[in-house]
Amino acid sequence: MLKSLREQVFEANMDLPRHGLVTFTWGNASGFDPASGLFVIKPSGVSYAELSVENLVVCDLDGAVVEGELNPSSDTPTHAALYRSWGERIGGVVHTHSSWAVSWAQAGRAIPCYGTTQADYFYGEVPCMRGLTEEEIEQAYELKTGEVIVEGFADLDPVAVPGALVRNHGPFSWGVDAAAAVYHAVVLEEVAKMAAHTEMISAEAAPAPRYLLDKHYLRKHGPHAYYGQASR
Amino acid sequence: MLKSLREQVFEANMDLPRHGLVTFTWGNASGFDPASGLFVIKPSGVSYAELSVENLVVCDLDGAVVEGELNPSSDTPTHAALYRSWGERIGGVVHTHSSWAVSWAQAGRAIPCYGTTQADYFYGEVPCMRGLTEEEIEQAYELKTGEVIVEGFADLDPVAVPGALVRNHGPFSWGVDAAAAVYHAVVLEEVAKMAAHTEMISAEAAPAPRYLLDKHYLRKHGPHAYYGQASR
Amino acid sequence: MLKSLREQVFEANMDLPRHGLVTFTWGNASGFDPASGLFVIKPSGVSYAELSVENLVVCDLDGAVVEGELNPSSDTPTHAALYRSWGERIGGVVHTHSSWAVSWAQAGRAIPCYGTTQADYFYGEVPCMRGLTEEEIEQAYELKTGEVIVEGFADLDPVAVPGALVRNHGPFSWGVDAAAAVYHAVVLEEVAKMAAHTEMISAEAAPAPRYLLDKHYLRKHGPHAYYGQASR
Amino acid sequence: MLKSLREQVFEANMDLPRHGLVTFTWGNASGFDPASGLFVIKPSGVSYAELSVENLVVCDLDGAVVEGELNPSSDTPTHAALYRSWGERIGGVVHTHSSWAVSWAQAGRAIPCYGTTQADYFYGEVPCMRGLTEEEIEQAYELKTGEVIVEGFADLDPVAVPGALVRNHGPFSWGVDAAAAVYHAVVLEEVAKMAAHTEMISAEAAPAPRYLLDKHYLRKHGPHAYYGQASR
Repeated sequence: MLKSLREQVFEANMDLPRHGLVTFTWGNASGFDPASGLFVIKPSGVSYAELSVENLVVCDLDGAVVEGELNPSSDTPTHAALYRSWGERIGGVVHTHSSWAVSWAQAGRAIPCYGTTQADYFYGEVPCMRGLTEEEIEQAYELKTGEVIVEGFADLDPVAVPGALVRNHGPFSWGVDAAAAVYHAVVLEEVAKMAAHTEMISAEAAPAPRYLLDKHYLRKHGPHAYYGQASR
Repeated sequence: MLKSLREQVFEANMDLPRHGLVTFTWGNASGFDPASGLFVIKPSGVSYAELSVENLVVCDLDGAVVEGELNPSSDTPTHAALYRSWGERIGGVVHTHSSWAVSWAQAGRAIPCYGTTQADYFYGEVPCMRGLTEEEIEQAYELKTGEVIVEGFADLDPVAVPGALVRNHGPFSWGVDAAAAVYHAVVLEEVAKMAAHTEMISAEAAPAPRYLLDKHYLRKHGPHAYYGQASR
Repeated sequence: MLKSLREQVFEANMDLPRHGLVTFTWGNASGFDPASGLFVIKPSGVSYAELSVENLVVCDLDGAVVEGELNPSSDTPTHAALYRSWGERIGGVVHTHSSWAVSWAQAGRAIPCYGTTQADYFYGEVPCMRGLTEEEIEQAYELKTGEVIVEGFADLDPVAVPGALVRNHGPFSWGVDAAAAVYHAVVLEEVAKMAAHTEMISAEAAPAPRYLLDKHYLRKHGPHAYYGQASR
Repeated sequence: MLKSLREQVFEANMDLPRHGLVTFTWGNASGFDPASGLFVIKPSGVSYAELSVENLVVCDLDGAVVEGELNPSSDTPTHAALYRSWGERIGGVVHTHSSWAVSWAQAGRAIPCYGTTQADYFYGEVPCMRGLTEEEIEQAYELKTGEVIVEGFADLDPVAVPGALVRNHGPFSWGVDAAAAVYHAVVLEEVAKMAAHTEMISAEAAPAPRYLLDKHYLRKHGPHAYYGQASR
């Protein structure tokens, strides 16, 4: 079932330790199939050495297991919530505890867009979501985590801002597929590091002007993009 | 003698440089056998390249060598003190000079629990022990180091808080076996790094609310745990 | 066409990830042939794994493609602008998003020359260029980026100061050939890191005295150089 | 000539990049033979890939080449000055531009002894030498660098404090042989990093009490040492 998607999601998960984004099992990637309304996700607590195309878990949009013998990632309800809201626009989700992104999430701050590295992929800052209430955490923690992200994007386009920080927790990112979500997870960690160092170097650092962000984002995205190889 | 435990302790010691936690010989792992009241520990000053299952040293709870031709780690009395007090609850101890944990120990501060990465393994902050007095250091330095840790845990559960900082020195961690103690040493170093960066990013950073810590700790530990694969 | 130069530029590009200076495709190196007035540059958005001597692109000093089937780097007009102004003195240009250099560029500060590591290659600080205006960015962003660098060197010798920070963007470096430009990119990243840490260690850190800079720069450069092997 | 010493010095030099202490050719190790009054040192500007037992250079205590076809390291007069003063107590010298040690040297501060990692090898702080005067730099820069180190140790024992920071430049370290000097260079870099982080974590961090330093230094050094394997 969903063999090609399984292979994509397997590769995306294996890319997380390759990029230095996860320690032990502290991360997971999923990929969504809009035709069937199902997504493939990493099983919970399984080491990357044990991970295989076969032991990935298939879930429906309620987060219920449709295929697989292992428990899905404990973050499955979060992934499901994002696909329920944004499944027409995103096809992959990644969660990690990458070091610099977690540090911003723990500090409770959005990452300002200080330069073009961020602007090439994020149309502005990487937002930090509001903290969950005690009731939300006790009732349905992982589900509410996803809903709080969707709530935080009420005025944001998840395609233009492909990631967010969950307060006191860590980063989630997404994209057209699982590989794109991994790519954005790498970008998020890199810009998190550079933004912290930017503020260390100058307490007066200011975000890049809007016209610079426009230029960088739009030269990579949309009908007038000219970065890369259009014909490939 | 204690062949299986020797193999576990050998692997745990070899994992320390693999995880980047030790430079040269600056670290050691031990494992405890409650049936015999003996523990296996790294020999003192032996490089990881020379370490073998055979040259590990077996000690009793007084720290006296029971089997082995080499001197045990100079930190043996510390390990022995922890097993004497907590031997019914822990089966492995690790000491390293890992960079960020040492920096907090040198700063003399407990590591606040800023987020879920820490809360998944530590039920609150990683405490920093009081400094040893001149008399304690001169009389029985390594023994007193262990006793100061036990003293510092008078109101703490070493199972819920599987590590501590020894002031001006560095981290000790423990767990159900030597592998778990290594795991907690990795967690301790990672959260030490992220907590320092959290404070760098925001001088107003506050510890995560207690209900978030409860949720994360209890979803991994205790009768209602749901992280990972229960059946495995 | 330009086979030897293609090989040099290929090696220079491949050295960028080897030195840890680029993530994904975020960097490019070029090399200039003064005889023909042409330069060889990385194609846009092509991964380092796919890069080959053959798929490099040859451009003229207007940035127009003379040979090659792929689009050249989107930064090609910047490289062209530098060769147009300095082509008699430099033969290679490198652009990266290396982490510490970007952090200084985002902070909008020149890197002070705090010591001999920098003075061995840069005769003083690494300057930070003025920000581009909205008009410049909208009209001809990459071209204006190059012109702003040339403008910023009105009173500086690009041979004595082989690199610069483009505000809110990142570092450009250059040298007698593409390999030298890579070398200076490595130096720039290293001194960017050390200068940030120098200020972290002492808020009163002062640049090294001019006579120390003179000594270090001149023992490596010019007729009285005595570093290295003159006869090799 | 001095075949065994050549091999030791070759290995010591090759260990510098292995330990991440040098970029390009920015470091050198030497070893001294008290019987002949000669020392073996790395040639100047030669890459580690090209370095061999054969192309090392043998110098006398005036820094003059006794054997070898290449120029010795430009830092040769510094090494010679240290052996002239301390040749009865030290047998190896290392110079690097390792990142954190250089940052302290550029900040012009001694590294306080915040904990036992440093105290195990340095009996107190790692001192920072006074800056050289313009006259000293112009007359005999590398020679004066050595003399300033010796001057800075007027009241210090180079065996108890096996390294120093040269202001605005970087670290020198030494030991009983070239391997010990490399070992101390690794320690120096590690404690430089941890001391900076200690101050970042607490602005009130205080050096470890003298009795703790005494304990750690003396359990590794002197007649009452008990660390390691006495019989090996």
